Amino acid sequence: MKNLAILGSTGSIGCSALEVVRTLAPHFRVVALAAGRNVQLFCRQVEEFKPELVALEREDDAREFRRLCSIPDLKVAFGQEGAEEVARYSSVDTVISAITGIKGLRPTLAAVEAGKKVALANKESMVVAGELIQQAVREHHAKIIPIDSEHSAVFQCMSKEAPEDIKKVILTASGGPFFRLSSEEMETKTPEEALNHPRWQMGKKVTIDSATMMNKGLELIEAKWLFGLQPEQLGVLVHPQSIVHSLVEMRDGSVLAQLSQTDMKIPIQYALTHPERRDSSLPPLDLSRVQSLEFYEVEEHKFPLLELAVQALDEKQAFSVALNAANELAVEAFLGKKIKFSDIHVVVAEALETQDGRMIHSMEDIFEVDLAARERARNLLTQRT
Amino acid sequence: MKNLAILGSTGSIGCSALEVVRTLAPHFRVVALAAGRNVQLFCRQVEEFKPELVALEREDDAREFRRLCSIPDLKVAFGQEGAEEVARYSSVDTVISAITGIKGLRPTLAAVEAGKKVALANKESMVVAGELIQQAVREHHAKIIPIDSEHSAVFQCMSKEAPEDIKKVILTASGGPFFRLSSEEMETKTPEEALNHPRWQMGKKVTIDSATMMNKGLELIEAKWLFGLQPEQLGVLVHPQSIVHSLVEMRDGSVLAQLSQTDMKIPIQYALTHPERRDSSLPPLDLSRVQSLEFYEVEEHKFPLLELAVQALDEKQAFSVALNAANELAVEAFLGKKIKFSDIHVVVAEALETQDGRMIHSMEDIFEVDLAARERARNLLTQRT
Repeated sequence: MKNLAILGSTGSIGCSALEVVRTLAPHFRVVALAAGRNVQLFCRQVEEFKPELVALEREDDAREFRRLCSIPDLKVAFGQEGAEEVARYSSVDTVISAITGIKGLRPTLAAVEAGKKVALANKESMVVAGELIQQAVREHHAKIIPIDSEHSAVFQCMSKEAPEDIKKVILTASGGPFFRLSSEEMETKTPEEALNHPRWQMGKKVTIDSATMMNKGLELIEAKWLFGLQPEQLGVLVHPQSIVHSLVEMRDGSVLAQLSQTDMKIPIQYALTHPERRDSSLPPLDLSRVQSLEFYEVEEHKFPLLELAVQALDEKQAFSVALNAANELAVEAFLGKKIKFSDIHVVVAEALETQDGRMIHSMEDIFEVDLAARERARNLLTQRT
Repeated sequence: MKNLAILGSTGSIGCSALEVVRTLAPHFRVVALAAGRNVQLFCRQVEEFKPELVALEREDDAREFRRLCSIPDLKVAFGQEGAEEVARYSSVDTVISAITGIKGLRPTLAAVEAGKKVALANKESMVVAGELIQQAVREHHAKIIPIDSEHSAVFQCMSKEAPEDIKKVILTASGGPFFRLSSEEMETKTPEEALNHPRWQMGKKVTIDSATMMNKGLELIEAKWLFGLQPEQLGVLVHPQSIVHSLVEMRDGSVLAQLSQTDMKIPIQYALTHPERRDSSLPPLDLSRVQSLEFYEVEEHKFPLLELAVQALDEKQAFSVALNAANELAVEAFLGKKIKFSDIHVVVAEALETQDGRMIHSMEDIFEVDLAARERARNLLTQRT
């Protein structure tokens, strides 16, 4: 039996992970959970899965949780330290890192430094700190198995191949809800329209990132660090059906691909059971019902945030940190109806212009660059609203 | 450097294999070649690749060859024994087994018994003698790497997965030239029409088998033995673009696939370089140019030979032997314009009706069953012509 911790258990990935754990019982047991601000749902999760340690983002939520959910011997922590405590909890074998945004970085690193197997859904960790995290993985003999469907596909296709045989990794992108629109048509799209993703049910931030294709950009940067690839080894293909989750081109002309139903439970389960596999609770993929799998080149000029992310592959790590930070704020402003859809990339691009290109040597450097970029983005947003 | 022998060097696969060897030089050297009756081409191949031993099918062709091609110290053999001598030639590391039909069986077994690595294109060996060959592989520590594009795809997708994790292997089929026709429309198709395959340039026998979908049937039987699968683990999907060469469904809902340009040089090169890969001389696969990959269920009633092959998966090995033998004769009669396209399956089905279901314990048993089936098919053909 394996002991699990879940960081971000009330989010979209966290909830799917708990569904997977239900079907994998009794092979997996949840021993620690950390969540944000959804105290009610968290309470139900804790009552069902009976962890030994839980953590909430805020102290007052932790207090509220204790009131709602009085389980004897349950340890309740809070704040950044609470999440980190969950991540390095001693009896835990595998940590599912599924807190969205840069908030997920410190707990992810804590899990790595505790030598855990980390099932990674928080892409920002790799985007802003890929080098530091991989260094910590080597030092602490940790292991990272990606949960993102694209990276899980790449992992499954390439992990058993020799690195020198990998020519190119091609991430597929559904193209999001606006793939067939012109730049002009996209300009005035509302948050409701952007949240109406054709294929995937996901959290709000990642769904907006999918509409701008920034999500694919962040995934490219994540893939660079996860798999140790050069910028020219990375590409994107639009594949509206989201059945082929990514492709790996080998030097001999063979292309390996992983396909499945569009359901995050599949990569989550793979990350948990790896290197084994277990039966799925989903019906098998029937390609004769899908009938046609389509592939298109991305019209990059329509997705300037993707262009910035591609540029980031060649830039210093600080560029990715600032890109991610400015994008988080701009998306938040868009979701709050403070800026237009087409303003997201304008704000991000402007925030990057004054980026000073410093070197990243530590977590502190990352947070400094992150804060400075947020500051710039916040100023730009204030000017616009 | 690896030393190669090629059985069937003047055939379609043999010629492609020599093309691959040219691009892989100096890593591979051809030391032995066996061919059928194309003495002129064989002579040019021998002059270019300078093997130490060659074999031709017939003694008079061997004599003609010596006259055309006088190379000092070249050993020239002939007949079944000649081909077997090539297969077990001592300095050979890898034998490409690419003689078409049951004629390829003994040389293939000779290579296996000599403990060679066998790059297998002759599907009949596995169809008629899968169990015996796999037994010999274990006994003599030989290794078989498939060359058929479908089996190469399956091999690449599943070889590093645990056998218990494999749920299903799905071979893709182009559907051949008549996939969209009705049974009535197929009935009177000429050899010229049947030889006009939409995707693959192949030998005549396999192209006709592709039109009847018997080729896919033989491949199912081959896959059963190559990969140790149960009949219910095998399936077929029509995929007219022939880009996805086959798919492997895992127990957890993931489906792994191998894709490439439609060019036999890719699986041939993989079989030669395995477990390594080497650069391809072909342009990379560009899915955005292919744009759409389609998949359809097979309308099995339109392809009665495929139905017979699926039945063979559950029957004793002798059924497959007789099926293959009767089909070889019926296809030959069709190519010679002695019977109609729709007669191929009628003759084969009738020849199988009187099949006595004996057990196969040895090569001799196989050849007895094979001869008896040919005799029955010959009689049936005589009655029709």
